[in-house]
Amino acid sequence: MRMRKKPNLAPRMAACEDWLIREPEKLRGRWREAFPGYDALWLELGCGKGRFTVGTAKAEEKTLLIAVERVPDAMVVAMERAKAENIKNVRFIDVDAAKLCDLFAPGEADGIYINFPDPWKKSRQAKRRLTAPAFLSLYETVLAPGGEIRFKTDNRPLFLWSIQSFSQNSWGLYEVSCDLHAEGISGVMTDYEEKFYNEGVPINRLVARKNRTPSEVKI
Amino acid sequence: MRMRKKPNLAPRMAACEDWLIREPEKLRGRWREAFPGYDALWLELGCGKGRFTVGTAKAEEKTLLIAVERVPDAMVVAMERAKAENIKNVRFIDVDAAKLCDLFAPGEADGIYINFPDPWKKSRQAKRRLTAPAFLSLYETVLAPGGEIRFKTDNRPLFLWSIQSFSQNSWGLYEVSCDLHAEGISGVMTDYEEKFYNEGVPINRLVARKNRTPSEVKI
Repeated sequence: MRMRKKPNLAPRMAACEDWLIREPEKLRGRWREAFPGYDALWLELGCGKGRFTVGTAKAEEKTLLIAVERVPDAMVVAMERAKAENIKNVRFIDVDAAKLCDLFAPGEADGIYINFPDPWKKSRQAKRRLTAPAFLSLYETVLAPGGEIRFKTDNRPLFLWSIQSFSQNSWGLYEVSCDLHAEGISGVMTDYEEKFYNEGVPINRLVARKNRTPSEVKI
Repeated sequence: MRMRKKPNLAPRMAACEDWLIREPEKLRGRWREAFPGYDALWLELGCGKGRFTVGTAKAEEKTLLIAVERVPDAMVVAMERAKAENIKNVRFIDVDAAKLCDLFAPGEADGIYINFPDPWKKSRQAKRRLTAPAFLSLYETVLAPGGEIRFKTDNRPLFLWSIQSFSQNSWGLYEVSCDLHAEGISGVMTDYEEKFYNEGVPINRLVARKNRTPSEVKI
């Protein structure tokens, strides 16, 4: 989904610059040092306009949340929301998720949120899906042992395809649901999610953790 | 679902005895020798009244299909169906799936069908589900490398639970569908399945193959 070009992007970005990290690659391997006092570091890939980002940061005060978004026109809205509520434990990065390993050292993140990513419906576009095997490799690298991915989508074909991708690459799946809000709203919603919920579209969700091979498990 | 007790079970069984294997443990490790000329050996766990069994055996003439069923009152109906159509490539065993490793040597089977198993809805009954981790271990043992499980159920909670069980035990999932017959009838149906299909209940299906660890993969 394309966004209408926002006017005055540069000055709006500048007004929120305390929330923006312009050269994130310089923090690679020392995020915890640069932002001390947090119990965990989580990433959100594709934060869009930031409703989930801000809601999650407020609910998880001891977690530093790094929101990644490659569409600046969306990200500026998210940043303005964070500024408006003066949320301290969130920062924004304007990059492509494919560059994750340039920004985070192996094992540096405790978890990754992937919410309503582009389904890239054509099969020749499958490699671009954020749950494609090459992306799962990146996530495996940047996640600490026992780290997890929390994935939500309204797109059932993408969800089933992702179950295949995760499982074939030896990620264990947990909390698998084809209708997350069947018994009332569960967790923090994204902007898209609220829209889908109001339209009666079921939301699919899962949590994925890399399976450990027997030799990796400490007894 | 309990079946009404069938009258005259013993004489009906006796009439189909060419299709019954009374001491299957004696064939352990030499099924292919005992039944030569087939390309593959498949198992069906819980064949019920055998509509799928007979339909599949007819469609796959080069495969020997061993149908396992612990309810004799159902199995006799399946055997009568096989006899009525004089199906050569199917045999029946009256045992519990938990004893699979007593009947088949490691790697002896090419595939396993699990159709509409009891969902054992209460969480304290989870160990009895045919996709519980202890059963997956048995399947891993009796399946040849590259062998697969084909699983169908109308029960969505069991399906999602099974996705978790398979993936957490490093089985890769393929052909995952939450509505198998969405675009018309696909594959051979069981008796239950036709009933559910006619009621508009979506059928869930997946194929599972054990992921190989890098050291097991031959280059």
